[in-house]
Amino acid sequence: EGTGFDCSRLTARLLFLNEADKLKLITRASMLGDGSRHENSAEHSWHIMLYAWVLAEHSAAPLDLDRVLQMLLLHDLVEIDAGDAPIHGVIDPAALEALAAKEEAAADRLFGLLPAGQGMPMRAIWDEFEAAETADAVFAKSIDRVQPVMLNLLNGGGSWVDYDVNLPQLEARVGKKVNLGAPGVWRSVRDRIEPWFRETGRL
Amino acid sequence: EGTGFDCSRLTARLLFLNEADKLKLITRASMLGDGSRHENSAEHSWHIMLYAWVLAEHSAAPLDLDRVLQMLLLHDLVEIDAGDAPIHGVIDPAALEALAAKEEAAADRLFGLLPAGQGMPMRAIWDEFEAAETADAVFAKSIDRVQPVMLNLLNGGGSWVDYDVNLPQLEARVGKKVNLGAPGVWRSVRDRIEPWFRETGRL
Ligand SMILES: [Ca+2]
Repeated sequence: EGTGFDCSRLTARLLFLNEADKLKLITRASMLGDGSRHENSAEHSWHIMLYAWVLAEHSAAPLDLDRVLQMLLLHDLVEIDAGDAPIHGVIDPAALEALAAKEEAAADRLFGLLPAGQGMPMRAIWDEFEAAETADAVFAKSIDRVQPVMLNLLNGGGSWVDYDVNLPQLEARVGKKVNLGAPGVWRSVRDRIEPWFRETGRL
Repeated sequence: EGTGFDCSRLTARLLFLNEADKLKLITRASMLGDGSRHENSAEHSWHIMLYAWVLAEHSAAPLDLDRVLQMLLLHDLVEIDAGDAPIHGVIDPAALEALAAKEEAAADRLFGLLPAGQGMPMRAIWDEFEAAETADAVFAKSIDRVQPVMLNLLNGGGSWVDYDVNLPQLEARVGKKVNLGAPGVWRSVRDRIEPWFRETGRL
């Protein structure tokens, strides 16, 4: 505290935190549970951290929950530069590749704002989430996928209507990944959503 | 997994997570950094978790950062029933007491939705935050107070204009508490905001 060096570390940190504020402006495809508006990526990140904590017992593999929470806290920051890519949006391989490059550049820029001793370990956690290979990352990805399903169920269809999604498509794009990290959660959630897909002729 | 008992725990958890979604509807006094709209308590909670992590080095006392993040993840949930009380709003002792009772009832209801083995430790973490006695809680409270200051500075005054706040009032209501948990942060932030208070005749 009080040295010039500390002061410049603090300045860098406050600049990063000011940038992070912009994640509240990134709109997602999902609506809130009450259907009143679209969700943004900052409040989504908060919500799925709570999901991860509350649902940790249902993980397929033993977890380091603190690490999962760190992953989810950081996971969408790159959207400040790269935007959110809706899971049910049309994605061709070239566009996917361009998006991945944009997200890498965003991670370079954003984590690069921090003192290196802090930004580099954070970047490593984001890389681990993206790679989706460790048990923590697989569970974190499951949680990221299942929360919008619960919102759609609450608000009467949400992005399933907007993107004209049927149950086999949802199984392929969402269910398969939720199942990897939290199979019991997917079994139960699938039972809850099936009536909606049946009633709307989307089985 | 798969037993009736597990299934009912999962049902309780999903109900709690559906309720938690409503925190996104609670509007705070602060505007976002770009001044485009008011902040909500869910995205605020996300932002201050990032603040806590990034600023942990500046804590007055040694921390359990994982516990601080858990505190901040939960700390505003009671606002779903009790609403947000703006720090610069007029508060008489009777209203404060009524609000505290409303928040206690909200904590009973919300954490009571979870299986007891999970809801009770979460409630204990919320109680610890409210009591503001442990080092983790004191730091968490500091962080909760300093983030709106940074937003106001970004958006040109924000709630300081709306509530007609001068610098001595800010020192009493905010600075004193930030100083308890993160004195170096308050010194630096105070230097950054003083010009605004000087220029607007609010010293
Ligand atoms: Ca995303």
